[in-house]
Amino acid sequence: MKNYRAIIQYDGTKYNGWQRQGNTKNTIQEKIEQVLSRMVENSVEIFGAGRTDAGVHALGQVINFKTDTDKSNVEIMEYLNNYLPTDIQVISVDRVADRFHARLNAKGKTYVYKICNLPYINVFSRKYSYFHPGKLDVDKMRKAGEYLIGQRDFRAFCSVKNMKKSTVRNLMSISIYNSEGEICIEYKGNGFLYNMVRILTGTLIEIGEGKRDIDTILRAFETGDRQMAGFTAPPNGLFLREVEY
Amino acid sequence: MKNYRAIIQYDGTKYNGWQRQGNTKNTIQEKIEQVLSRMVENSVEIFGAGRTDAGVHALGQVINFKTDTDKSNVEIMEYLNNYLPTDIQVISVDRVADRFHARLNAKGKTYVYKICNLPYINVFSRKYSYFHPGKLDVDKMRKAGEYLIGQRDFRAFCSVKNMKKSTVRNLMSISIYNSEGEICIEYKGNGFLYNMVRILTGTLIEIGEGKRDIDTILRAFETGDRQMAGFTAPPNGLFLREVEY
Repeated sequence: MKNYRAIIQYDGTKYNGWQRQGNTKNTIQEKIEQVLSRMVENSVEIFGAGRTDAGVHALGQVINFKTDTDKSNVEIMEYLNNYLPTDIQVISVDRVADRFHARLNAKGKTYVYKICNLPYINVFSRKYSYFHPGKLDVDKMRKAGEYLIGQRDFRAFCSVKNMKKSTVRNLMSISIYNSEGEICIEYKGNGFLYNMVRILTGTLIEIGEGKRDIDTILRAFETGDRQMAGFTAPPNGLFLREVEY
Repeated sequence: MKNYRAIIQYDGTKYNGWQRQGNTKNTIQEKIEQVLSRMVENSVEIFGAGRTDAGVHALGQVINFKTDTDKSNVEIMEYLNNYLPTDIQVISVDRVADRFHARLNAKGKTYVYKICNLPYINVFSRKYSYFHPGKLDVDKMRKAGEYLIGQRDFRAFCSVKNMKKSTVRNLMSISIYNSEGEICIEYKGNGFLYNMVRILTGTLIEIGEGKRDIDTILRAFETGDRQMAGFTAPPNGLFLREVEY
């Protein structure tokens, strides 16, 4: 069987997240598997690099799948884009080595969180950014970001506590851009826990609002207590931008 | 009564265009009038600078309306944005002189038409650009644009022929930008006929595809025959960007 890697973009608004599991219907994984399986007239399983939550978007989700087909890479991409809904699209398809696995081989990921910080909703990005009209001190948020980066135990910054698995991750960088009322927070890390980017974002927003002091970050790391971190920012502002191998 | 000017943004996807008229339901004008009338507990009529078609968007539609209210400009804007749907938003409200009329006083308008020229649909702008994956010769389109500008009779480039009214308009400029697979065509003119921007765009697209020669533009101007111009490009790529006074 040939192993393929594809890069996928999706608007997650209408979907119950990436992962097909149990009774969860209407996942992005399921939509792509249905079209691929129809193409090769055989059941195909795909493996995605990031299991994005319900409502989260992707600019560069990476998947791999194994199948036999006579179609060229371009033909596979055209078939998929022809039969996928317009809110899920394939931007490239390549042959890769048999051992390549999109999730297990990922060395790092970049997520971006977008905040609409205007007195009115930007109607064209209303589904692609979190509307927060109140004042945010971006310089203070940048300073707080420096306290969050590094190889650390992010137990306080995730939603589900599985005591068996390590909650240590290396958060390489947080960059904050502010342009024409859109604040973008970019996170680069070797991996992210469940809801971690959204809780980091909620923490930074509460600091930017002045509702929270930067030193609560230190207490969150010390105690591992979810209560010491900020709220879980809504999914519609979050994008999986890139996966590094 | 006080006269107010407001700048409006909208995603036209769900609406039957700007203008409330006859049996046409679900227009943008109607939505704004409903909220304004509720605010002042009195019927308010608004006047929009451009009567955009069904499915066309606006970045900077200008309106005016006369009413008596004790609310400040900011309070009016907040009230409107609070009660308007999230695909229609007010970005500013100002008091203006009694004689100001958004449509009659407009000296010029800028429209932008966006084309997604990639082998796949950009999922995030799928409602805000016309998907055209085929090759387009942008240099040839720019050259054709030079044949379209000037003070001319655009009879061949509009949908309805009302022989009584002048079809002469001054098209000041056409600028074409091409960035990362998105082609933007910007039109500046003193006024535009019904469907004119969409027909100009369809003409430029057919020239860019090589299906039409630039000299058909000359024939369209000579004959005034709609058949000599290109197809009416779909509304979802079109934005009213700005109105000049």
